[in-house]
Amino acid sequence: MLTNHHGTAPGIWLEDTRHQWVAMLPGVPREMREMVREAIMPRLLARGIGTPVVVRSRTLRTTGLAESAVAERLGDLAGGIGPLSLAYLPGVDGVDLRLTARGLPEPDAERLLLAGTMQLRERVGRFAYGEDSADLAAVVLEACRSRHVRLAVGESCTGGVLGARLTAIPGSSAVFVGGVIAYDNAVKHTMLDVSERELQTAGAVSESVALAMARGARSRGQADIGVAITGIAGPDGGSPDKPVGTVWIAVAGPQSASGDPDDGVARRAVFVGDREEIRYRAAQAALDMVRRRLTD
Amino acid sequence: MLTNHHGTAPGIWLEDTRHQWVAMLPGVPREMREMVREAIMPRLLARGIGTPVVVRSRTLRTTGLAESAVAERLGDLAGGIGPLSLAYLPGVDGVDLRLTARGLPEPDAERLLLAGTMQLRERVGRFAYGEDSADLAAVVLEACRSRHVRLAVGESCTGGVLGARLTAIPGSSAVFVGGVIAYDNAVKHTMLDVSERELQTAGAVSESVALAMARGARSRGQADIGVAITGIAGPDGGSPDKPVGTVWIAVAGPQSASGDPDDGVARRAVFVGDREEIRYRAAQAALDMVRRRLTD
Repeated sequence: MLTNHHGTAPGIWLEDTRHQWVAMLPGVPREMREMVREAIMPRLLARGIGTPVVVRSRTLRTTGLAESAVAERLGDLAGGIGPLSLAYLPGVDGVDLRLTARGLPEPDAERLLLAGTMQLRERVGRFAYGEDSADLAAVVLEACRSRHVRLAVGESCTGGVLGARLTAIPGSSAVFVGGVIAYDNAVKHTMLDVSERELQTAGAVSESVALAMARGARSRGQADIGVAITGIAGPDGGSPDKPVGTVWIAVAGPQSASGDPDDGVARRAVFVGDREEIRYRAAQAALDMVRRRLTD
Repeated sequence: MLTNHHGTAPGIWLEDTRHQWVAMLPGVPREMREMVREAIMPRLLARGIGTPVVVRSRTLRTTGLAESAVAERLGDLAGGIGPLSLAYLPGVDGVDLRLTARGLPEPDAERLLLAGTMQLRERVGRFAYGEDSADLAAVVLEACRSRHVRLAVGESCTGGVLGARLTAIPGSSAVFVGGVIAYDNAVKHTMLDVSERELQTAGAVSESVALAMARGARSRGQADIGVAITGIAGPDGGSPDKPVGTVWIAVAGPQSASGDPDDGVARRAVFVGDREEIRYRAAQAALDMVRRRLTD
């Protein structure tokens, strides 16, 4: 039994005859840290296996590339950079690249991690959107803020996931005006000005409808940029032409090379995963399209 | 070392001199179950601590009442019902009440749990919305479906959380049309027909604006019911009158006693928690208001 100095929050220490051991600690972070410091570290040091080693890491967040495509771009850096090890952490946000320095003096570790992260950035280029715990929604809001542009959304299959991510960031109201959850086709028409003819001929999940939704969100929301998502989140509704996971994403505005702010861009993606993952990945890809539209 | 019959997915078994033991198993559910069956149970049975005991439980989900208020309503049942133990599981969805039967013959367990759940239902009344893993969003969609009514939302502080919850349910498009993320006040006016005067005099977080948003969502979405949320999710924006967590929720339609479908209802709540929790609790309360409007 392990106890902290209050005698509360007991943990358990087990050690078998072969000197394998397990420490079970309370889940409350503050209590856990205290017990590691006061009860676990002394035991580890007594066994000669706790010699403090400086471990520092730095993570580059990427989105829009599969793990294999990231590794291909990294080329000779794919296995690590000098003494730094490299871990690939794929998730619904994209692939995070974590560089770790173990056992190096702290100033060296920090210097190598900074240089290493820059080398990774050069290889992955525009697919990198931030470091460590950066949230792409916050990155997009900051890009809007610094350019004095306001953002509106039009969401079909995501049904609010994109808006929820943007408004999860405190202060988002400075640049995010809101938008339309255009789940029903009638709402796409009445609230986002998508023509009924377009909905019938191209279908709700199409480039032209995605573009019209983005333009509608922009103009109806009196915003500078409109971003729209329309797709098939599943589990039903797929077809050979448009399988489950097919999503069209479009951005209209703020101002294109042609000078026409309605000259938007659209892209099609087929996301893997269940309904929840497909919706989340679609929202992430939409955020990334806005980021690129603003910063490219 | 523990292995399954493929020799893969090894787990670890540690036992100290006082016969305290720990089993560490792989996280993949299928592998974990197999190892419990093939490697852990035999060891437990050999130690006489694995005699199989039938454990069955049934959970009643409630929302809108604090844990203490639930216990008060339960009265003499608050500590359990006969041989059934009762656990209070509070969370952002509300308070779940889990009855558990241990060591009873299975038919008796099932019968007692059914009767016990009914007794709990009588005490908590309208605050119960389902059993076991029931999702309030699915309950609301089903209530709409069976009554042939269609639902639209108007979201300010939740910014899409409510829509995202509804559209997380496959098949929601049969009754959920979508709505407006009215984050900016201008959007509340232009897209939900909230009068500018109302926004200025009552303020965006007010009964009259919540009601106007619900009516606007209903009429603009060409739906039968509109539900709206406007509040202060924090961390900034609070005031002595309207502290962080203050939320107005309103429902308009489908048809009231007066025959006027716009004769809506509104309620004010002050939710505790961080920004994320406040937004989630507000969406849950809005769903519950729709449920009660339809089923009361």
